[in-house]
Amino acid sequence: MEKNVFWDSIDYIQLKTKEILSKVSDKDIEKVKKLFFESNRIFLYGAGRSGLVAKAFAIRLVHLGYQTFVIGETITAPVQKGDLVIIVSGSGETIPAVMTAEIARNLDANVVSITGKRNSDIAKFADITVYIKAGCNEKERKKYAPLGTLFEASVWVLLDGIIADLLDSKKETEEAMRSRHATLEQ
Amino acid sequence: MEKNVFWDSIDYIQLKTKEILSKVSDKDIEKVKKLFFESNRIFLYGAGRSGLVAKAFAIRLVHLGYQTFVIGETITAPVQKGDLVIIVSGSGETIPAVMTAEIARNLDANVVSITGKRNSDIAKFADITVYIKAGCNEKERKKYAPLGTLFEASVWVLLDGIIADLLDSKKETEEAMRSRHATLEQ
Amino acid sequence: MEKNVFWDSIDYIQLKTKEILSKVSDKDIEKVKKLFFESNRIFLYGAGRSGLVAKAFAIRLVHLGYQTFVIGETITAPVQKGDLVIIVSGSGETIPAVMTAEIARNLDANVVSITGKRNSDIAKFADITVYIKAGCNEKERKKYAPLGTLFEASVWVLLDGIIADLLDSKKETEEAMRSRHATLEQ
Amino acid sequence: MEKNVFWDSIDYIQLKTKEILSKVSDKDIEKVKKLFFESNRIFLYGAGRSGLVAKAFAIRLVHLGYQTFVIGETITAPVQKGDLVIIVSGSGETIPAVMTAEIARNLDANVVSITGKRNSDIAKFADITVYIKAGCNEKERKKYAPLGTLFEASVWVLLDGIIADLLDSKKETEEAMRSRHATLEQ
Repeated sequence: MEKNVFWDSIDYIQLKTKEILSKVSDKDIEKVKKLFFESNRIFLYGAGRSGLVAKAFAIRLVHLGYQTFVIGETITAPVQKGDLVIIVSGSGETIPAVMTAEIARNLDANVVSITGKRNSDIAKFADITVYIKAGCNEKERKKYAPLGTLFEASVWVLLDGIIADLLDSKKETEEAMRSRHATLEQ
Repeated sequence: MEKNVFWDSIDYIQLKTKEILSKVSDKDIEKVKKLFFESNRIFLYGAGRSGLVAKAFAIRLVHLGYQTFVIGETITAPVQKGDLVIIVSGSGETIPAVMTAEIARNLDANVVSITGKRNSDIAKFADITVYIKAGCNEKERKKYAPLGTLFEASVWVLLDGIIADLLDSKKETEEAMRSRHATLEQ
Repeated sequence: MEKNVFWDSIDYIQLKTKEILSKVSDKDIEKVKKLFFESNRIFLYGAGRSGLVAKAFAIRLVHLGYQTFVIGETITAPVQKGDLVIIVSGSGETIPAVMTAEIARNLDANVVSITGKRNSDIAKFADITVYIKAGCNEKERKKYAPLGTLFEASVWVLLDGIIADLLDSKKETEEAMRSRHATLEQ
Repeated sequence: MEKNVFWDSIDYIQLKTKEILSKVSDKDIEKVKKLFFESNRIFLYGAGRSGLVAKAFAIRLVHLGYQTFVIGETITAPVQKGDLVIIVSGSGETIPAVMTAEIARNLDANVVSITGKRNSDIAKFADITVYIKAGCNEKERKKYAPLGTLFEASVWVLLDGIIADLLDSKKETEEAMRSRHATLEQ
């Protein structure tokens, strides 16, 4: 029955995302949060769907008042010492992602990688690697959550959790966030 | 304790997303799926974070072999009779979203709106409106899931469920999807 | 001979661009330049190829040290009183362009429109309209410079002229501009 | 006088662009045009302002009926044997541009590089390199056309010349181009 694939997939993605997020290292999250208070500007990088997840995070950081840039967009800035560069990459091994981490490291920026592969190339250049244990060999995975679906859904929620935490730490409010929302969004 | 806000938010977003998705109309999902088999090309529109959710869906549709365009990107095409235009808009009332729906309707395209507000302006021009009941007046919502967070997380998963369903209906495989994946992603 | 169309087109575009630029009002350019010194942040808007011309200008403004945003990109900000909103629109009548001008005006921003049609809708909401006399009924135009080609090429050069002027007025140097160039451009 | 810098810059950019374009190899342009008739799909790549020039070309190729993709945008496709990959890069040496050329070459695509540096790294992987002699040590250059301004303005016009030529060769018309223009451009 066609109908069931939709609902089964919805359930499967949510169940696995919950499982994956429960395994994220609390210590790593603490370290990432600390970097937000020690860094100047925030730069996000990601390709494909991981890039969209990174951009969604960037939008909320702007709402929280952080000076934020998305690497590859029209308006960006040179990364400098003391900036925070966050790279989202499922494999942790695509050349542009690894190169971005390496260059950022050489510029003395703080580098965080969020990746689905432990000991990936990108980890070598990152101060902190948040490891998302999204790999999964179950047969259902291919059917209900093809390609990077579990990684991306997990990181989407994880980053919104960081937003809620920063919102609290900075004693900001939803209203203040709304006031920083784009008025001329197309 | 700062720590708890992160984990509480993660839990809250997942709990509410589950609740919200369980209320989506099965009949509407069936109608949307049917349109995928009756339409020619697929066009996606959304602004801000809703736009990112729409783009993530577009990427997977390309992997499934659909000719897909994102309205507002460099490469797009004129919408024509028989095309499917899907608009993601939390409020269902921002002018560009409503205008996109109206123009698409006038061009005899099939129009689907995915929105968090029942009876919104956009619904007038849509053949099908998938209503996402993400509104929520709980105090915790502002703290753990500010602004459109619940709407966006819910639609992200919902659209991945549609992907799984189309994958099954079209008898496609994850491997075939991977072969349509961009090789030169930056 | 195929060959000649390429070279004839190159010549034609340059000849016409020169003619078009020579008719731009010096007084209007002076007024636009003045606004750069009286405004806070700069916002650019344009669709299609006009949007690309606007973005090219935005990149250089960043190099000159202006806080600049491109409306519609991931990272943007709410337009406020005292900001400068510049809209590039060949027809001056597309709904999103006119709407952007109207909203910006209502927010008490300074609004500049650069358009190919005198007395277009957008002019009603603009403090200054830089009129680019790119309309041309010559037969060769359709062959050598189809659609908005002359408007876009003219505005590209015009905006680079404004950059040179601001570079001089602000006593900036090419070296300082280079230091603000993105280091992690993808 | 401030005023003069604007007009002097406009004149300077146009004068130099004319000079630069007159030195482009006619033989190389012929070879590029030939590739348009021998290739399947067209892929464009460029970063920063060069990327905007590449995108402007991509939009017109769509108007001419070519299946065109911009590398790095949401909707793209895997490059395959027989596709044409065109890379615009002033220096011809930025890592992502060179890497794009190398990967495209390894995939048996036809590779064209448009660059301001003869014998650049990118040329090693390109079937054809269109060399734009935009380098210029004149003092005025820094003042009137900082950074890559001359390269970008020259390539903008050059690519519009190729469009006019393809328009003629394919016996297309401006009207047909307009009919392929996006109707829902934001």
